[in-house]
Amino acid sequence: MSMNRIEVCYSPALFDLYQDSDAYVVVVDVLRATSSICTAFSHGVSSIIPVKTRDEALAYKQKGFLVAAERNGMILDFADFGNSPYNFSKENVAGKDVVYSTTNGTKTIQTAAQSKGVVIGAFSNISALTNWIVKQNAPIIILCAGWKNKYNIEDSVFAGALTERLLQTNEFYTECDSANAALNLWQHNAHDLRALIDVCAQRERLRKNNLDDCIDFCLQQDTCNVVPIFNGTALIHAEV
Amino acid sequence: MSMNRIEVCYSPALFDLYQDSDAYVVVVDVLRATSSICTAFSHGVSSIIPVKTRDEALAYKQKGFLVAAERNGMILDFADFGNSPYNFSKENVAGKDVVYSTTNGTKTIQTAAQSKGVVIGAFSNISALTNWIVKQNAPIIILCAGWKNKYNIEDSVFAGALTERLLQTNEFYTECDSANAALNLWQHNAHDLRALIDVCAQRERLRKNNLDDCIDFCLQQDTCNVVPIFNGTALIHAEV
Repeated sequence: MSMNRIEVCYSPALFDLYQDSDAYVVVVDVLRATSSICTAFSHGVSSIIPVKTRDEALAYKQKGFLVAAERNGMILDFADFGNSPYNFSKENVAGKDVVYSTTNGTKTIQTAAQSKGVVIGAFSNISALTNWIVKQNAPIIILCAGWKNKYNIEDSVFAGALTERLLQTNEFYTECDSANAALNLWQHNAHDLRALIDVCAQRERLRKNNLDDCIDFCLQQDTCNVVPIFNGTALIHAEV
Repeated sequence: MSMNRIEVCYSPALFDLYQDSDAYVVVVDVLRATSSICTAFSHGVSSIIPVKTRDEALAYKQKGFLVAAERNGMILDFADFGNSPYNFSKENVAGKDVVYSTTNGTKTIQTAAQSKGVVIGAFSNISALTNWIVKQNAPIIILCAGWKNKYNIEDSVFAGALTERLLQTNEFYTECDSANAALNLWQHNAHDLRALIDVCAQRERLRKNNLDDCIDFCLQQDTCNVVPIFNGTALIHAEV
């Protein structure tokens, strides 16, 4: 087996520079979309349908779907709930198809849809994800959702943590400066991740909206043993 | 005097997200364009005319200008010399107008041309640049030239060093994740910058082309007491 390449893309707006139909893409939006998606699958959701626009989400709502939707942290008025992992409880989602639309994360899933496959990554599922990636024997692009196409720290530090896991298998290599910088950020801050996150712009946005109760949960590793994968329409359980 | 904002943009392709006609932009291409430009000014160049394309550079050459031009590290065949700071010696450039075209750096200067002003930054002129910026009392965007619109480590770590200098004046603040991550990269690696640079993709590109003799020079602080500024056509000495 030859070594496979790791690359990290810090913004959906740069993804064209990385696009590779032979690569799997890991979409990352740690605060909070991809942490919430992992939680939903660990709580038995049937599928999650990511949609880009408010209008698409509203159309699904009118057809009777359960809808989770937020913009800039605030729940959209017609939605059943928002973007906190605590919303995706067993009571709310088990056995259901949930339509999901967020400021950054769910759009990013569709940005990467032309790849070999798109999976969902967060600290919540880092071990399950690492194991799944290794089995695919393919190049990996870690795509950070960021904030409105700008770089963000929380997604980048997760990209570093995942890069470290993959390099440790000795089945991956990287020559990508973004991956090496993310690894550096992770390795110098893993001992006190919360302190790093406390300077993030997103941490302040969540605090202002009184939505910061989920941060420690989102930074915890392996709360879920799931790998959500995009089938072109919806996220479903990947075969693990 | 109110505090001024620092932002860092990791790629010319993301600059539209940061564009602010009230801000000064510091263009950074540490390996090697902006280090070379600083060196040229410290060696008495009259002006440097940055041009985007090979054809523009060739047209200037045919009009009799001195031309420094490279792509992917290699000197263009018609050029007088390439992109190493060692090319910009007193003998080569003193008293002259030099036309300059590089893979990333010189294009980036024009990307930022709609700002309040564009100046050139490198470790070579970090103290002179810091002093000049403080006097302007305006927001600052540090624009990394990167590599073909991808993030690179050498420009980011310089962005972190400059961010640290500006924050230390207590006249600047940042809420920008790119700036905070760059600061983290600098502060964790300043004690052995060469080790960090040795994992960069650009370091490997330069080594392959036998062009890596200038790296230590480009990482050295304050070899030049100059601030090159773009006047819309050419880089000239800023008033300091």
